Amino acid sequence: MPAPLSLPGVLLIFIIIFHVEALKPHLLGRRSVRTSSSQQRNLFYKTFYFDQQIDHFGFLENGTFKQRYLVNDQHWHKAQGPILFYTGNEGDITWFCNNTGFMWDIAEELGAMLVFAEHRYYGESMPFGNESYSYLNYLTSEQALADFAVLIKSLKKTLPRAQNSPVIAIGGSYGGMLAAWLRMKYPNVVIGALASSAPIWQFTDLVPCGDFYKIVTQDFANSGINCSKNIRRSWTAINNLFSTAEGLQWLSKEFGLCSPLKEEDLFNFKGWLQETWSNLAMVDYPYEANFLQPLPRWPIKVVCMHLQFDTDVPDKQLLHGISQAVRVYYNYTGSAVCLNVSETATGSLGIMGWFYQSCTEMVMPQCTDGVQDMFEPMAWNFQAYSDECYALFGVRPREDWADTVYGGKNISSHSNIIFSNGGLDPWRSGGVTESLSDSLIAILIPEGSHHLDLRFNNEYDPQSVLLTRKLEVMYFKKWIKQNTSAQ
Amino acid sequence: MPAPLSLPGVLLIFIIIFHVEALKPHLLGRRSVRTSSSQQRNLFYKTFYFDQQIDHFGFLENGTFKQRYLVNDQHWHKAQGPILFYTGNEGDITWFCNNTGFMWDIAEELGAMLVFAEHRYYGESMPFGNESYSYLNYLTSEQALADFAVLIKSLKKTLPRAQNSPVIAIGGSYGGMLAAWLRMKYPNVVIGALASSAPIWQFTDLVPCGDFYKIVTQDFANSGINCSKNIRRSWTAINNLFSTAEGLQWLSKEFGLCSPLKEEDLFNFKGWLQETWSNLAMVDYPYEANFLQPLPRWPIKVVCMHLQFDTDVPDKQLLHGISQAVRVYYNYTGSAVCLNVSETATGSLGIMGWFYQSCTEMVMPQCTDGVQDMFEPMAWNFQAYSDECYALFGVRPREDWADTVYGGKNISSHSNIIFSNGGLDPWRSGGVTESLSDSLIAILIPEGSHHLDLRFNNEYDPQSVLLTRKLEVMYFKKWIKQNTSAQ
Repeated sequence: MPAPLSLPGVLLIFIIIFHVEALKPHLLGRRSVRTSSSQQRNLFYKTFYFDQQIDHFGFLENGTFKQRYLVNDQHWHKAQGPILFYTGNEGDITWFCNNTGFMWDIAEELGAMLVFAEHRYYGESMPFGNESYSYLNYLTSEQALADFAVLIKSLKKTLPRAQNSPVIAIGGSYGGMLAAWLRMKYPNVVIGALASSAPIWQFTDLVPCGDFYKIVTQDFANSGINCSKNIRRSWTAINNLFSTAEGLQWLSKEFGLCSPLKEEDLFNFKGWLQETWSNLAMVDYPYEANFLQPLPRWPIKVVCMHLQFDTDVPDKQLLHGISQAVRVYYNYTGSAVCLNVSETATGSLGIMGWFYQSCTEMVMPQCTDGVQDMFEPMAWNFQAYSDECYALFGVRPREDWADTVYGGKNISSHSNIIFSNGGLDPWRSGGVTESLSDSLIAILIPEGSHHLDLRFNNEYDPQSVLLTRKLEVMYFKKWIKQNTSAQ
Repeated sequence: MPAPLSLPGVLLIFIIIFHVEALKPHLLGRRSVRTSSSQQRNLFYKTFYFDQQIDHFGFLENGTFKQRYLVNDQHWHKAQGPILFYTGNEGDITWFCNNTGFMWDIAEELGAMLVFAEHRYYGESMPFGNESYSYLNYLTSEQALADFAVLIKSLKKTLPRAQNSPVIAIGGSYGGMLAAWLRMKYPNVVIGALASSAPIWQFTDLVPCGDFYKIVTQDFANSGINCSKNIRRSWTAINNLFSTAEGLQWLSKEFGLCSPLKEEDLFNFKGWLQETWSNLAMVDYPYEANFLQPLPRWPIKVVCMHLQFDTDVPDKQLLHGISQAVRVYYNYTGSAVCLNVSETATGSLGIMGWFYQSCTEMVMPQCTDGVQDMFEPMAWNFQAYSDECYALFGVRPREDWADTVYGGKNISSHSNIIFSNGGLDPWRSGGVTESLSDSLIAILIPEGSHHLDLRFNNEYDPQSVLLTRKLEVMYFKKWIKQNTSAQ
């Protein structure tokens, strides 16, 4: 899930505007796939394009677009092996394909075909080509779920000997929400789902809006002495430095910024830092990785090494530490010439599309109080949020819709869904962290960050994630067996 | 369900065109509620209008319309009594309210509030007022289900002490399909559903397309000697008479038609008769009733009294019998001045809207072979159907969509749905007639026609429907109890 979502209320919107203005020309170009350790494994897949309805829920628009999907069937046991179907989220599907090593690791054991389906309006799956951002009306999770359902039905019909292959949906983050919802809404199409780090309850009135940033804060508090305390102190220090021309100049230089800060950049600058800390909490993996950015192992520990001084050091000393800490995220490889406060490195995520989704269905309230978290207090203000969305896209978010259409807390009648969450992952705040029945299973990975279980096995993996993956495979086998005996 | 649906393939389309051309100016005016025995019971309800989203699945159209719903709470036990929620079908909701006596009969026993919600694009619930038929794009079952879900959530939130009232969806025919689908898609909103005479499987490749007319034929075959045989013979006799001017004149007079028949009316005339027989099979109730038309008790028996002669009588004698038989349906009260072959009396159903739905999602293949049924052979021809829909509305039906979105035969993971079907009802052909699990219950009412169980108790009711209603109430109570103990 892109980080802008993790900013509270009105601030979020400022960042959105900033992003949209700043990133508009670069968005499409940012979708290139980066080299990462997982990619070095040389994953082989074939790329296909499916003629997908632009509008599943209306018939006057009868056009189709090319939905991209990737297939690997080298381990598939025809006629009986399952299909593991990744429900693509808000970005280029090749990126998720390369960052979902779990599926590649278990394909042989399960005799499974792997399919990675791209979400409409991201990557190459653009309903109106280069004009797609001008016609965003068909960008909804319901349309995306219908895409997945129609694609799966078609694959099972057209692939030789796939008719009886049970399909399991797998996804992480927003893709995990989609995996869970696909099982809820189309249980005829998938026999079960693994929803990893899927904050399906991060909607209005379902969970406290402050939990996300509380978890971010805990991650920093637990990673070094005074770490979260010094970050909490930094906002006032920044305010102080922003109040003089000399301070602005010093800050710009200290942070090695590409463009010098101006007085009016205060919100953006603090928002950029807040987003950086939140992103770090999401990707606090136990080994060197490159999900959003190339990072060292346990990156927050490395960040906090720069922030372990006393909590009464002068502003400039404090912010020197902050600038060193920020570079862990933005310049671990040492290749950054300067830092750009309008970019927070969100990998191959499609920011523009996600902004629109956040402004329509995916209203995920966030707030901070500065006490239980290390950020400046910011209440959740739906009206301001809605007004900004209207100014940006001409749409108003529907605050209650996700709860109505996806069941909110009332989902116990569904079945065969695993909800895995990482103890370190701030998105755990909106996740299902307690089992709801004997087939709606919650698994907590205490040392895990954002969908760690979906990544390749790694020598540094904590025992908890290794066991989680085993448990997940066990449930897959159970569902497959149930399905076979029901046929 | 309006009868045009029950015509096979291309013939159906001719009738559609005929209807559309003929009925366009009258459609809105036909929605008045007729006096019926059930209405004479003086049902009291309040009428409300809910501001409903025009488009639940897109955000650029953010307008709302007034959805009508009717409420009776005279027996409601606040804070604990259930809400019985009728999922309105393709017609004026007051008509369904008056024809769903079952809900009125059981309200007191259950301490229930009754809500009857109108389906968008029918009755008074027109998204674009008088212009609604020019903007049919938002007329889909998915939008209707979302309307129901949003309305229920709002009622529970705003009605005093309704927060914990469990809601049970109830519907008949297409309304029954909606009730079942509401439970499948929004189990968070309704704890269970009674889907009476709901042909949720009457879609492509799910059931044999000929079953509908086989059942119609059985009803006539079982209601009088030579009855179905003589109807089967009538088509050739009609062809013969249509081949001469004298024959046409004789037919027009014999049937007391408002407009004399012309040579080109052959298809329409036969289609009108076929629809009449099908409608009779739907409303073959054991007592005098007025659902589609005022009719005697067991109307097919009365019809067949006119068709009990030998199967070798001359054409004119045969068609005299047919004309007498037809009058049972169109002129039981004796008030018809002449018969109109462009009208088949579909009560308060909204024909235009249903045509559009049949031309988009509700593709329900029908066919005849003239051997196992009493009609002229007519194969199902999807392409011709699609072409006619395109000519009519500029839309193409999506043959596989209903199967994908509503699960087809693969619905066993759902729960708490009763599927009741009448043994005499031709729509049983697409119904769930065997239980799929211990909470997906099928009940067959051998002597029942179309959703007989939803009607008021009547002294002539067969034992089977009385027991069915008792069973339905028993399941309602079970669901309510389950829900209470889960809270």
